[in-house]
Amino acid sequence: MGIQDAIGELSSLLGQRLSRSKSDLELHGASETHFPLTPPDAVAFPKTTEDVAQIVEICARHRCPVIGFGTGTSLEGQSQAPEGGVTVDFQHMNQILEVSQGDMFVRVQPGVTREALNEELRATGLFFPVDPGANASLGGMASTRASGTTAVRYGTMRDNVLGLEVVTAKGEVLRTGTRARKSSSGYDLTGLLVGSEGTLGLITELTLRLHGIPEATSAAVCAFEDVPQAVETVIATIQMGVPMARIELMDVDSVRAVNAYAGSDLVEKPHLLLEFHGSESAVAEQAEIFGDLAQDFGGSGFQWAAKPEDRTALWSMRHNAYHAILASRPGARCLVTDICVPISRLAEAVEACRADLQSSDIEGPILGHVGDGNFHACLLFDEANAEERARVLEASERLVDLALSMGGTATGEHGIGIGKRRYMEREHGAGWAMMGAIKTALDPDNIMNPGKLVPPRN
Amino acid sequence: MGIQDAIGELSSLLGQRLSRSKSDLELHGASETHFPLTPPDAVAFPKTTEDVAQIVEICARHRCPVIGFGTGTSLEGQSQAPEGGVTVDFQHMNQILEVSQGDMFVRVQPGVTREALNEELRATGLFFPVDPGANASLGGMASTRASGTTAVRYGTMRDNVLGLEVVTAKGEVLRTGTRARKSSSGYDLTGLLVGSEGTLGLITELTLRLHGIPEATSAAVCAFEDVPQAVETVIATIQMGVPMARIELMDVDSVRAVNAYAGSDLVEKPHLLLEFHGSESAVAEQAEIFGDLAQDFGGSGFQWAAKPEDRTALWSMRHNAYHAILASRPGARCLVTDICVPISRLAEAVEACRADLQSSDIEGPILGHVGDGNFHACLLFDEANAEERARVLEASERLVDLALSMGGTATGEHGIGIGKRRYMEREHGAGWAMMGAIKTALDPDNIMNPGKLVPPRN
Ligand SMILES: Cc1cc2nc3c(=O)[nH]c(=O)nc-3n(C[C@H](O)[C@H](O)[C@H](O)COP(=O)(O)OP(=O)(O)OC[C@H]3O[C@@H](n4cnc5c(N)ncnc54)[C@H](O)[C@@H]3O)c2cc1C
Ligand SMILES: Cc1cc2nc3c(=O)[nH]c(=O)nc-3n(C[C@H](O)[C@H](O)[C@H](O)COP(=O)(O)OP(=O)(O)OC[C@H]3O[C@@H](n4cnc5c(N)ncnc54)[C@H](O)[C@@H]3O)c2cc1C
Repeated sequence: MGIQDAIGELSSLLGQRLSRSKSDLELHGASETHFPLTPPDAVAFPKTTEDVAQIVEICARHRCPVIGFGTGTSLEGQSQAPEGGVTVDFQHMNQILEVSQGDMFVRVQPGVTREALNEELRATGLFFPVDPGANASLGGMASTRASGTTAVRYGTMRDNVLGLEVVTAKGEVLRTGTRARKSSSGYDLTGLLVGSEGTLGLITELTLRLHGIPEATSAAVCAFEDVPQAVETVIATIQMGVPMARIELMDVDSVRAVNAYAGSDLVEKPHLLLEFHGSESAVAEQAEIFGDLAQDFGGSGFQWAAKPEDRTALWSMRHNAYHAILASRPGARCLVTDICVPISRLAEAVEACRADLQSSDIEGPILGHVGDGNFHACLLFDEANAEERARVLEASERLVDLALSMGGTATGEHGIGIGKRRYMEREHGAGWAMMGAIKTALDPDNIMNPGKLVPPRN
Repeated sequence: MGIQDAIGELSSLLGQRLSRSKSDLELHGASETHFPLTPPDAVAFPKTTEDVAQIVEICARHRCPVIGFGTGTSLEGQSQAPEGGVTVDFQHMNQILEVSQGDMFVRVQPGVTREALNEELRATGLFFPVDPGANASLGGMASTRASGTTAVRYGTMRDNVLGLEVVTAKGEVLRTGTRARKSSSGYDLTGLLVGSEGTLGLITELTLRLHGIPEATSAAVCAFEDVPQAVETVIATIQMGVPMARIELMDVDSVRAVNAYAGSDLVEKPHLLLEFHGSESAVAEQAEIFGDLAQDFGGSGFQWAAKPEDRTALWSMRHNAYHAILASRPGARCLVTDICVPISRLAEAVEACRADLQSSDIEGPILGHVGDGNFHACLLFDEANAEERARVLEASERLVDLALSMGGTATGEHGIGIGKRRYMEREHGAGWAMMGAIKTALDPDNIMNPGKLVPPRN
């Protein structure tokens, strides 16, 4: 069988760096959320681009599936192995290769995590802004087109990847992009690969745009009587062009969960969590405009976190919200929705979501990157309870339909993987077949992360 | 023959809206720069997406080339018809379909020009920033991934197209993108089509991101003793993170040409032309920082153009620079180079370019969007002088090599078309073949703008 033959050759090539241990297979076949375990047949740990090229070349010859793996935090089953094969774990390719202060970019291997990168950059006065909460790998983040709390100001991975080195489905190494700030030189291959979830090739190097650490940063929380008030404040802020660095919503259920988990003492009301970046005067100006708007919409209990340690505590509370929500119902699994709608429809979308969950009797705390019109409901269910699971899946499907009916998207940032593939035709129509045609052209034997994102091969 | 059969059918479909007049064929086969006339066999003037779909469907059946046409201002022969066929001129598809103030986007047909769009938007407080100088069509601008003077602040067409409606090579209509501000829903088809120069399909509608007209705008010019001083000032400004709205260089030859053409009286020295956008206080702060930096680098003769009419005069002078340079040598043709390098290499690149032109005895005034590291030399030559033409072509090739050796690109914004196709392999290596594979998958019969951008079909 192809897979076993590939593994035989890989084992000679990689020795100890090819694992078939049960724990490795299970770790790499698991999901952060609710998908059943689907382990690969082996896990490879390359150290160099050359290793990766050889791994893919061997797998290509034997038509063995190849699945990239960063830190496995993706939420739609992207890094699982539903058709078996070889998972390529990039944890040993974790070098920062070059930092250019003059041109404000960094060149990294894909296994570098965003926290490790920013740690390393600290002395340079520069930072990499994309922040999905989880300490994900940069290769994984590019592959899912991740974003997070700072996208409202600094954009997503789409905007912050300048170029890639990629191993194609044939095992060929190619480079996309340049170090220049813009280019009109042919098809945007970088843009095509960002968000392709490892279905078109493996990323072995990334050139990323950096940003200057702002002169001043301040963060704040503000409570509201209800979610629509909070959301209307966000809409007004965005429409006034205030360049918010972060603007996050937590509904009252999320607030309760984080209070219990992190020992914080936010009043039990919906909250916005904010961050302002700029010069001292710009930050003061932005904060004043925001404060006025919040007051107009009934905001209260505005609290500053100007000291770095208070800010860190605030954002770590936010980043742990997922775990806090899981902990609020011990033993439960979570299906995280991720719809994104035009800003003007956001209040309506959040309210419709809350009403739907309430009437379906589903626990689903809501939080989100509301400056982008993007929010998540964490739908909790008991895995052993098939009826509850089905109810949650149906609700998540209705939420996708809601987003699409408003001109939005099924996923603002988590991607497609296994979980959202069934909505692709609804969202893209003939565009989904176009994605399939591109996939077939670049990976005729369908070895790169099969079973995800694109239409099933006939 | 396929083309003639297609024209027969098209003529029944379109009646008067299919032209075979000599003047129409020549107009659509000409180039703004130096490429020989290559007329199509007919020019179609669709009014609706349905028209376009039918035109392409007919051409597909007869394997007849289809070339999109906006305003024909592209500079690398993109809209010419080297293999004949039918040019689809979008001038009658010039409706603005929807303006959303709340979500800050506009939906337009492809024939709307950027000036017409901004005229229409004036009352809304919003504007569309991408500005290639020429009054190009938005469909053409998306197709070449255009940018221009404001890209340093607002990005290029890559950053400002939210979604498209496209007629594929099969004559199928599909939509890409959504109205949400971000999405991780599959391959970025919008990004793939932007910059594809009509080789993958025809754009029949665009959804574009709008920006708020800034509270305050001010513009200025500043003279420098030499080009390196001007460029060092730009580098320092960008590296300090000053959010310049425009920062343009004209070398002394360009200054002479525009003085003669526009009757302006800039001192005969290299100049930077600047624009600042923001709140009153932000603009004042930016201008002060810039002024200090310019002084450090020997800038002088700082002059403000705070009144709208002075600003308009300034930018219309800049936008007419190409024509001014052409007029400086009556009867001459111009090859416009368009290299883009990392900012840190910009001074070196501009100096190397000047030295090369001087030693090759070529007249080539330099100007550019230096905030992006992007500049143009307008290489003048006498069309009847084969030796001079060859000398100019060789110089332009050396400039591309220079850009690539610095980690830059052969084209910052003008695109590939016919003129830069021979540099694609040098810039992209195996990536160019990947572009070819995508093209073949989406347009198996190679009817969409053949002879441009991608590798020749075997
Ligand atoms: C608590 C929590 C909060 C989160 N919050 C956010 C958020 O705010 N925003 C957000 O965008 N996401 C969020 N996520 C999701 C997740 O962090 C992102 O999807 C992230 O981009 C995944 O990175 P990873 O390194 O874990 O990738 P993995 O899960 O390992 O892989 C993701 C996909 O990329 C592919 N891949 C990985 N590495 C490569 C490579 N080098 N080359 C090619 N393909 C590769 C994999 O095959 C897979 O398809 C969150 C997750 C958790 C658990
Ligand atoms: C004086 C002058 C200054 C310029 N300055 C700049 C500058 O600063 N920045 C810059 O980027 N460019 C500049 N240009 C170049 C030019 O304006 C741009 O390339 C512009 O984007 C071309 O738009 P157009 O409508 O004229 O397109 P066209 O020239 O008509 O077509 C360009 C390409 O797009 C295709 N196309 C057109 N419409 C469609 C459609 N609806 N669907 C699919 N394909 C289509 C054509 O087939 C062709 O391949 C300048 C040109 C001139 C003459």
